[in-house]
Amino acid sequence: MSVPRHVLIAPSGFKESLAAEEVAACIAAGVRRVLPAASVDEAPLVDGGEGSASTLATATGGRLVPVRAVGPIGEPVDSHIGVLGGDAEGTVVVEMAAVAGLRLVPRDHRNPAATTTYGVGELIRAALDHEPRRILIGCGDSGTSDGGAGALQALGAEIRDHDGNELPRGGEALVDVASLDLSGLDPRLAKVEIDVACNIHNVLTGERGVARVFGPQKGATPEQVETLDKALHAWAGVLTRDGQAPEDADLFAGPGTGASGGLGAGLAGGLGARLRQRFEVMLDHVGLDERIARADLVITGEGAFDFQTARGKIPAEVARRAKLQGKPVLGIAGTLGKQASEVYDIGIDAIASILSSPMALEDAIARGPELVTDAAERMMRSVLVGSALAAG
Amino acid sequence: MSVPRHVLIAPSGFKESLAAEEVAACIAAGVRRVLPAASVDEAPLVDGGEGSASTLATATGGRLVPVRAVGPIGEPVDSHIGVLGGDAEGTVVVEMAAVAGLRLVPRDHRNPAATTTYGVGELIRAALDHEPRRILIGCGDSGTSDGGAGALQALGAEIRDHDGNELPRGGEALVDVASLDLSGLDPRLAKVEIDVACNIHNVLTGERGVARVFGPQKGATPEQVETLDKALHAWAGVLTRDGQAPEDADLFAGPGTGASGGLGAGLAGGLGARLRQRFEVMLDHVGLDERIARADLVITGEGAFDFQTARGKIPAEVARRAKLQGKPVLGIAGTLGKQASEVYDIGIDAIASILSSPMALEDAIARGPELVTDAAERMMRSVLVGSALAAG
Repeated sequence: MSVPRHVLIAPSGFKESLAAEEVAACIAAGVRRVLPAASVDEAPLVDGGEGSASTLATATGGRLVPVRAVGPIGEPVDSHIGVLGGDAEGTVVVEMAAVAGLRLVPRDHRNPAATTTYGVGELIRAALDHEPRRILIGCGDSGTSDGGAGALQALGAEIRDHDGNELPRGGEALVDVASLDLSGLDPRLAKVEIDVACNIHNVLTGERGVARVFGPQKGATPEQVETLDKALHAWAGVLTRDGQAPEDADLFAGPGTGASGGLGAGLAGGLGARLRQRFEVMLDHVGLDERIARADLVITGEGAFDFQTARGKIPAEVARRAKLQGKPVLGIAGTLGKQASEVYDIGIDAIASILSSPMALEDAIARGPELVTDAAERMMRSVLVGSALAAG
Repeated sequence: MSVPRHVLIAPSGFKESLAAEEVAACIAAGVRRVLPAASVDEAPLVDGGEGSASTLATATGGRLVPVRAVGPIGEPVDSHIGVLGGDAEGTVVVEMAAVAGLRLVPRDHRNPAATTTYGVGELIRAALDHEPRRILIGCGDSGTSDGGAGALQALGAEIRDHDGNELPRGGEALVDVASLDLSGLDPRLAKVEIDVACNIHNVLTGERGVARVFGPQKGATPEQVETLDKALHAWAGVLTRDGQAPEDADLFAGPGTGASGGLGAGLAGGLGARLRQRFEVMLDHVGLDERIARADLVITGEGAFDFQTARGKIPAEVARRAKLQGKPVLGIAGTLGKQASEVYDIGIDAIASILSSPMALEDAIARGPELVTDAAERMMRSVLVGSALAAG
């Protein structure tokens, strides 16, 4: 083989600029300019965070259904759920970021002690209206730390303090939690499988818990962090005692319990949901490994390659899986940040930035599709120089 | 061969940022990160314009000699000449841009009717002090349009009007030119070869002449353009009659007569200098073709790839020569501007920008060495992906 014949394009979205399917389409267009005869397979990828419902609905030929629900600070927001189609029919996607994401929390309301996942429960109710076999809940990019208490309340659970009063919304209120009553839960929940796609490294309480790791970046003061950790600890106890998780489940610090500010623990304890490794759910869903097997060359991408990329971002997972099959991987990013070159160590063989000239971030975002397409073309041309050298 | 073993790095400088030798060194460093065993040949290239004296002096192991001389608007400037070493010993380089370049003309003095090449004559005198066998005069990036009259005056020529009065400096004054008296020329000039490295497409007068083509960008009004063209026409007549060019030379519109605002015509007519294709002088000088022959892969570069690149810039010439020998060419630029992809049609097989993230031009310039090095590494990694694909 002198040039790649089967190219798999498996990028993440570029945050605040392009959805994964747009990135994939642009890279594909750039590749086709150089390799018009190649088969180009577009596999836009999501990890459960922002944009996941939309990308999965598009990819499966399903649809987005608008839902108005309570946002993280209690104001109503226009949100949506993703009703999947094709092979995924029967699954409805609830993306927590679409109703309780950090993006929906105004900077002056960044108090994780007060924000709520109430809207997530409303989206789950809306999902139930479609009589699904399975609800897939995507975590990531959350603006809440209420342990999923709000979501359970929206679904009919009653959460009370020692005086028997219903707890107000927000994580901090859980410091007084005494009981959880699930008898009022929406009865349709009993008939549906609930999978939560989460980063299994996130745990609810303790040194590596939600409050300590994410509290500060969500806007908590040091005092709030301590109170919140105490509150989530109390909540885990009540969830364990009064909830419906399997007996051996560790809701304090089990894998994924800390996903989306503890939403993982709340859904596992309150609804018996399964907390699953997000890539297992999200990438197996699109048959990623099989598609890697068919490709000569894999191209991934992300808004920025930096020190975080290697730590569990989509391109890292794509590279890991591609390397298991011995496939070369190219990476395209908007920004090559600090320690971008670390990605060379995790199986991304070459990287490129989409930037073609000095420009401001806003301009790069506005020109995103054109820049991604041109960058893919340029990179593929360099690859072909190498192919010609080796063949010649 | 699976990977390139001999890489020739033949870039231009990045204007206002990095000299050609700096660009070459940075690209070489990036290539070596990926191909530590390859032989990397650095051939920094200049075309006679800004930076040429310095780059040639460095490349030949010669030296720059400081010379204080009259600048384009009549104020003294700190300039220099390049005394070459090595195989080029005996040649002194006079770079017109170093004493009469556009960069030395303040924006509020951009009147090409008034600026002078007087300082070029002074640099030639300084060059003569080194008793050279040959003086190489680099054109390009000029801020003058005086037909080289100032340079001749500085060397002892007398240029008079119909009343016998010495003409003042500047191109417009030539509208009254009546005679040129070369009897007072520095006598040492008779013993030295003078080569002018010029863009041979530049001619002195007429529709494609200096006044019409370059006048507006040097700051001339439409009226000044007409007067200047008339003046240069008169000057060409006097140069032909009273000068020392061969009888069949066309000083009105011969190849290169318009170089650097007509400096070409002035030096050819006044000194009997040879007007030579700039790349022939500048690139043969460094043995470019022989070095291309030894390379598997050629990397060139320029501050910006845009619609002008294909029209006679260094990377275009490098690509042309490389393609004559069937060698692949990569191009690295600070900015990929309008129609950058035109360079694919002239033999540059793949291009890359040095930009790695959204940033302002000043930041890109400040971080130039790091950005060029990283870009070369990234590009070479893509090449190697292609090599591995073809080999595997």
